[in-house]
Amino acid sequence: MSFFYLSNRIIFCFSTMTKLIVVTFLLFHTSTSSSPSSLGSAAMLEPLFQYIDDHQNQFIQRLKEWVAVNSDSGDPTKWGEVERMLKMTADMIEKMGGTVELADVGTHQLPSGETMQLPPVILAEFARDPKKATLCIYGHVDVQPAKMEDGWVTDPFILTEIKGNMFGRGATDNKGPVLAWLHAIESYQATQKEIPVNIKLIIEGMEEMGSFGLLELTRKRNDSFFADVNFIVISDNVWATLNPALTYGTRGSSYFSVEVDGPKLDLHSGVYGGSIHEPMTDLITLLGSLVNHKGKILVTGVTDNVTVLTEDERKTYDKINFDLEEMKNVVGVKKFIQDTKEDVLMARWRYPSLSIHGIQGAFSDPGTKTVIPRKVTGKFSIRQVPNMDPTDVERKVKEHLGQVFSTLNSPNRLKVTATVGAKPWMANLGDPQYVAGKRAVKNVFGVEPELIREGSTIPIAQNFQEETGKSVMMLPIGGHDDGEHSQNEKISRNNYIKGTKLFAAYFYELSLLH
Amino acid sequence: MSFFYLSNRIIFCFSTMTKLIVVTFLLFHTSTSSSPSSLGSAAMLEPLFQYIDDHQNQFIQRLKEWVAVNSDSGDPTKWGEVERMLKMTADMIEKMGGTVELADVGTHQLPSGETMQLPPVILAEFARDPKKATLCIYGHVDVQPAKMEDGWVTDPFILTEIKGNMFGRGATDNKGPVLAWLHAIESYQATQKEIPVNIKLIIEGMEEMGSFGLLELTRKRNDSFFADVNFIVISDNVWATLNPALTYGTRGSSYFSVEVDGPKLDLHSGVYGGSIHEPMTDLITLLGSLVNHKGKILVTGVTDNVTVLTEDERKTYDKINFDLEEMKNVVGVKKFIQDTKEDVLMARWRYPSLSIHGIQGAFSDPGTKTVIPRKVTGKFSIRQVPNMDPTDVERKVKEHLGQVFSTLNSPNRLKVTATVGAKPWMANLGDPQYVAGKRAVKNVFGVEPELIREGSTIPIAQNFQEETGKSVMMLPIGGHDDGEHSQNEKISRNNYIKGTKLFAAYFYELSLLH
Repeated sequence: MSFFYLSNRIIFCFSTMTKLIVVTFLLFHTSTSSSPSSLGSAAMLEPLFQYIDDHQNQFIQRLKEWVAVNSDSGDPTKWGEVERMLKMTADMIEKMGGTVELADVGTHQLPSGETMQLPPVILAEFARDPKKATLCIYGHVDVQPAKMEDGWVTDPFILTEIKGNMFGRGATDNKGPVLAWLHAIESYQATQKEIPVNIKLIIEGMEEMGSFGLLELTRKRNDSFFADVNFIVISDNVWATLNPALTYGTRGSSYFSVEVDGPKLDLHSGVYGGSIHEPMTDLITLLGSLVNHKGKILVTGVTDNVTVLTEDERKTYDKINFDLEEMKNVVGVKKFIQDTKEDVLMARWRYPSLSIHGIQGAFSDPGTKTVIPRKVTGKFSIRQVPNMDPTDVERKVKEHLGQVFSTLNSPNRLKVTATVGAKPWMANLGDPQYVAGKRAVKNVFGVEPELIREGSTIPIAQNFQEETGKSVMMLPIGGHDDGEHSQNEKISRNNYIKGTKLFAAYFYELSLLH
Repeated sequence: MSFFYLSNRIIFCFSTMTKLIVVTFLLFHTSTSSSPSSLGSAAMLEPLFQYIDDHQNQFIQRLKEWVAVNSDSGDPTKWGEVERMLKMTADMIEKMGGTVELADVGTHQLPSGETMQLPPVILAEFARDPKKATLCIYGHVDVQPAKMEDGWVTDPFILTEIKGNMFGRGATDNKGPVLAWLHAIESYQATQKEIPVNIKLIIEGMEEMGSFGLLELTRKRNDSFFADVNFIVISDNVWATLNPALTYGTRGSSYFSVEVDGPKLDLHSGVYGGSIHEPMTDLITLLGSLVNHKGKILVTGVTDNVTVLTEDERKTYDKINFDLEEMKNVVGVKKFIQDTKEDVLMARWRYPSLSIHGIQGAFSDPGTKTVIPRKVTGKFSIRQVPNMDPTDVERKVKEHLGQVFSTLNSPNRLKVTATVGAKPWMANLGDPQYVAGKRAVKNVFGVEPELIREGSTIPIAQNFQEETGKSVMMLPIGGHDDGEHSQNEKISRNNYIKGTKLFAAYFYELSLLH
């Protein structure tokens, strides 16, 4: 534990008022000081960093092998590939001296009614020393769907480096970061340094589907696997700007399927058009009732529980170094719904949103087809924030859609299914993990990390925090323009290799603070 | 010319009032009488019918060979198959002694900007006798798209007979009827009977796309190919009920693509949701502004020119033998938008309709994908009736969508394209073709045909009538449950074989009336 940290601690007794100022000071300034820990870090970490630099092409080759596996968990026919990917991960951990359990997380019922065995979850650990703090690292090795015809410039399953960026599905979400953790451990082992914290790993293959079975597993292993864990760290998101970041909150998500089932077969729109209650007409009305062009969710009551913005919270957004014009260029839009940096960030991080993703069963190919589709299923999701509750959201969405549908006087059959329901997550910023994370970032990147929230969902963050009561932090290494879930997903060589160093440094900084 | 027909003609001089009654009588009752033509027909046609019965399996084998060709004109990559199908058709006509010209109809520009050579149009004729009437038969050998995964029970390109129905793409629309015409000619040739009319054929491969190039070809050949044509007959629709029918009107059609182009790549709905003007949200609003749940088109002014229903016209619908309950079973719906037989038929035949077919570019697969699609294209079409004009409809739709889009304050780019614009068609019911058609139906099926209109579009019917000034009739042989454009399209063995007899009989009856 550093002198600076101790000396600051002494000031704590002054007054509550002073305490508040000091905590803020701690959060924003500890790692900028030249504390003994930072000075010690440099000497301690230099050989590790050298090893990582020297082995970067080997690390990239491993990522290439991982990206080559189409472990798309959204498609049950690919679950075999998900299992193969988990096996490759387990083999690597075992070769590094870790012990691995492939934990059974049961079965899952598909929308078709079929029941399938879920891929297992990796529970792994390296040699334990009761004197050290125990860090549990979470990651996932499944990916989103990817097809060349979606607009990929390179084959999504062949990692391809172009001008310092390495393109491939899973490069940043989340195969690259999982490998970076393993390579950080390797850097200690290869340089004969003792890893300063006990390491546990949880690696799953169902994250993109909503981490089926993992919550239950967490509950079951709360008194065993998790009993001696002090910290849980997740690197499954990206920076918000050009600067490195620590993430202290994520939005939750519920994914809805709205099926409108009508005639028993597709019909010719010439022969039947005008006489049929067309499922597409019903569905378009249903989807059109969800959100307006300003992004406002129109489902009655769904946003009632959103935490009210305080002036103090609003001010935290002023400090974030976010270039609105740069972001417009990255995504290729002339404007966002909101006009200011603060409002855009709040729309992405602390307010809910509703996106309509597509329609299954309708005509979706190029060309012209004059069909009345017999059954169509709209897909949309709601990103949730504190204090929205997925169960409450699901109930209100179903009520709303049922009510809108009842006005259509339609003989078609409506079925609304919520397939994922993940709560939003907010961490305690005063936790030692955040101090260690800030120091590690400063050490590797030479700048202060930004303290950010994340619009996307890592359901397990909230689940881990709620179920285990342990400290949870998110420590991203992906760039803000990595395009996770998009065409041409990538991670830069720089972020991948410096990210590996960050993780190695983080082990060390965390050990000093425990 | 028959005695009965002459004797009725004599009555014409009585008075205008009487004349009207007699015309009606002629239209509804001529073929029920045992006129000399009908008596003559039986003896004349019996050997032809016998030949057709004896060769039905061979006729079905030919249809099987034709159905095996995936001549989907909606997909330009399949135009090679369309050309192969046209070549097979031309070869068959030539083997039967016809002369064939493969007429060049120029090029077509795809939405991508690429220009492609259109498949040719077959202009064929059999030996001409200036004393005979000349009948020009129109048909097409291209098909709608079909994939097993759309819900076909059998392979759409392997004609499969199940309980008297022959399933396959194009079986009824329109390969079956085209073959039936050729087999009707064959029945005269094989039984050494002189074909009583001169036969010309126009067979195209672009009907499902809107008959690209055919209108221009009709204009060019008005003074040559069409000069000696007396009648044009089209068999490219189906009966409306269990009864055979003659069709005297079709709806027109315009097909619209509404493209909303937004960010330069697909975005993660978690990361960006709430801050982006999502193209899908814009598109859903645009599509939702087109038609309401009662089938009413909401585009301002589009229905202004629809012919006003008169009491006389309304009464014609009373006579049609249409079983609403049976039709509900066929399509598998509990109710139609309208409650009565008359209103349902008018909604399908004499009022316009708007159907939304689907969205290209959005997530359309099974499973869950949390994407904000970067560019989405909605597809819809409007079926038009007299006196709507496609050019006027296109202008009003574009104005309407532009106006709705302007209210969204969206930075996305809207592009509305009308890819097909076909006028509605109405024939003159007093034409001799309808009398001959009625007699032929009575002769083969033993019942009176119903005089119906058709909700779907055969653009060329109106084009032929308008450009050549010749009489046009539609003489369907497909059953009302054939499911053209749907999964499991079929034609029954009974309709296919009796339809061939109908065409043979029709040649004969038409020759008597000319």
